[in-house]
Amino acid sequence: MEIINLDHISANPLLPEVKEAMINAINVGYGNPSSQHKIGDRASEALESARASVARLINCSATKEVIFTSGGTESVNHAVKGIALANSGKGKHIVSCNIEHNAVIRSLRRLKTMGFEITSIPVDKHGRVNPEHIEKAIKDDTVLVTIMHSNNEVGTIQPIEEISKITKKKHVLFHTDAVDSVGLVAMDAQKLGVDAMSFASNTFYGPTGVGGLYLRRGVKIWPLLDGGTQERNQRAGTENLIGIIGMGVAADLASREMDERLTHLKKLRGKLIQELPNYIDEYIINGHPEHCLPNLVSLSIKYIEGESVVLMLDEDNIAVSTRSACASGSLRASHVLLSTGLDYADAQGTLVITFGVDNTEETVTRFLTRLKETVKALRNLSPLYKKTASH
Amino acid sequence: MEIINLDHISANPLLPEVKEAMINAINVGYGNPSSQHKIGDRASEALESARASVARLINCSATKEVIFTSGGTESVNHAVKGIALANSGKGKHIVSCNIEHNAVIRSLRRLKTMGFEITSIPVDKHGRVNPEHIEKAIKDDTVLVTIMHSNNEVGTIQPIEEISKITKKKHVLFHTDAVDSVGLVAMDAQKLGVDAMSFASNTFYGPTGVGGLYLRRGVKIWPLLDGGTQERNQRAGTENLIGIIGMGVAADLASREMDERLTHLKKLRGKLIQELPNYIDEYIINGHPEHCLPNLVSLSIKYIEGESVVLMLDEDNIAVSTRSACASGSLRASHVLLSTGLDYADAQGTLVITFGVDNTEETVTRFLTRLKETVKALRNLSPLYKKTASH
Repeated sequence: MEIINLDHISANPLLPEVKEAMINAINVGYGNPSSQHKIGDRASEALESARASVARLINCSATKEVIFTSGGTESVNHAVKGIALANSGKGKHIVSCNIEHNAVIRSLRRLKTMGFEITSIPVDKHGRVNPEHIEKAIKDDTVLVTIMHSNNEVGTIQPIEEISKITKKKHVLFHTDAVDSVGLVAMDAQKLGVDAMSFASNTFYGPTGVGGLYLRRGVKIWPLLDGGTQERNQRAGTENLIGIIGMGVAADLASREMDERLTHLKKLRGKLIQELPNYIDEYIINGHPEHCLPNLVSLSIKYIEGESVVLMLDEDNIAVSTRSACASGSLRASHVLLSTGLDYADAQGTLVITFGVDNTEETVTRFLTRLKETVKALRNLSPLYKKTASH
Repeated sequence: MEIINLDHISANPLLPEVKEAMINAINVGYGNPSSQHKIGDRASEALESARASVARLINCSATKEVIFTSGGTESVNHAVKGIALANSGKGKHIVSCNIEHNAVIRSLRRLKTMGFEITSIPVDKHGRVNPEHIEKAIKDDTVLVTIMHSNNEVGTIQPIEEISKITKKKHVLFHTDAVDSVGLVAMDAQKLGVDAMSFASNTFYGPTGVGGLYLRRGVKIWPLLDGGTQERNQRAGTENLIGIIGMGVAADLASREMDERLTHLKKLRGKLIQELPNYIDEYIINGHPEHCLPNLVSLSIKYIEGESVVLMLDEDNIAVSTRSACASGSLRASHVLLSTGLDYADAQGTLVITFGVDNTEETVTRFLTRLKETVKALRNLSPLYKKTASH
């Protein structure tokens, strides 16, 4: 039986055109782009063509501002650690916020053991940072501000343009983890005004294990991977060319189909939120009502555990998640939800539903129907639910 | 016209079985191995099956000693920087040798800027380190010895087992960059006695952009990529599953076909070396006559430049290289060749020929014939050659 994927944030399927391009790349048998013979030339052309496609997607001022990496996590580690370490002569203070992805949080924690000081800004109940708080947190020895573009658990989009005005004024470098935004919503690196931006191919239906780092010209950074001269000495290592070719094609498609996709995703998301009261009661929709990802619904259902819902829906071949797949080994409540002020029990009852271009309106109805039954069954087992007077 | 690849060290072609497995993985549409639903389960099974194949290839004592990375360069950076930084409480001294790959050299240079002290051991004229020199170089504050298994330019294989006996005795961690050995020659992590070993999928005809790090249980190391809980918290980031599946199949084939491949490669290498005097004169074969890679010939041809030979052979659709593709942006003479005592002019006249399973004896003859013509043409243009009395 076909599995209904409502967990696109964990993994988007490859689009048919991306599959075709990758299969073609496998069959062509590209060599090493760094080789100085015809086999290398052909590989190098394919690499640079993909780079141009990605640069167009995020509107770089120059193609070479795109560095290919092994994914969002590498991009984030490269940007955060690389900028901090390369600029530590100026100071060792970094500003971030409380709901960043673990790639940022743990990179910062690593830097802390190396003598850096981190100021982490709280967010409001919608998961948004206040740019004024960032401005106040910046000190003379601040070398980096790193604030995510969109949150992967509640979907809230941060005021990146406003923050970049502040970092420019204060002469502090600004990185945004845009792994869940680039290719999903319109992103313009120049307009955003950031110095570095991390992203991943799979967000726009390219392969996993490939990503990119936008690095504005002139930004001082250490490579994370030292070695060969690849990526203009910024990222050593023979390229994952098959993956990069897939990413390039996915970027072209995302540029072309962006509006159409957004309309479709917003329709699905709107339908879910609008019809939800007809199926279940006593729930909270997390995140910002307006500044949010078009395909994500974070739903805290009272009196039950999100993990149980995921398992029961999985039995019905419906895939949803409780939070970032990267954190799925952890049983603790989400730091993102607790930061928005959700209590521990509600945080534990949270589902993250993320739509993709392959979902249909029928999917939403199917999901809601099964969710209703699942919630009913689980609440019948819940001592907390039975104790509550209102039922 | 088909290009004859005699530059396998830059890029090995994918084997048909590897292509098939990767194309199948693309069509299956695996999800995220970290997801807690069926889509994730299927992906996780594919990931662990590939890990078992790789663990068998290098004879790990446990499958989980294999960490998947984005390639040899990431593995080396992870091992060298990660072990040094995690153990810096003990000391900040590292022992290495003069002919390491740039991934090691530049990782060490990076650590130097962070307060580490590096002792780099010279090699003999065959490119071999003397284990006694390593033993003498180890101090009380030495935290890491990193010596490559085989050299990518001259093919010399180092006495890793002898060195590991010393590092064990001295209680110092030992990493070997085995990127050009694993999957090409028989490698047994336990017998070698190393604590960490870097390798890459493409060496055994898997895709580029995928690699592995063998990490003996209990070795203290920092992740290079901080973030999610993937790879048992050792290497964050959603996996390049298509590439990893290709690597797993390539590992199985390498385990099974190792003897047959070695016989074939040694025959081709033997034929080249034996017949070479019938085609050209005044040349040097670099590297160790016995402890060497079975598929590599480093050939310094007097009075001409290697770059010119590469370009002229490329016109004839024969791909060879002058050195590591990773260093091809650099015009300086190879640090490896200079370290073995070769003079500057001879180093500049060096070609690296690397055979693969797809080459035949006819290829060798074709190469020798074209090489003879090329060398003759270039020497006729060489003022140095004309000046030399003997001609």
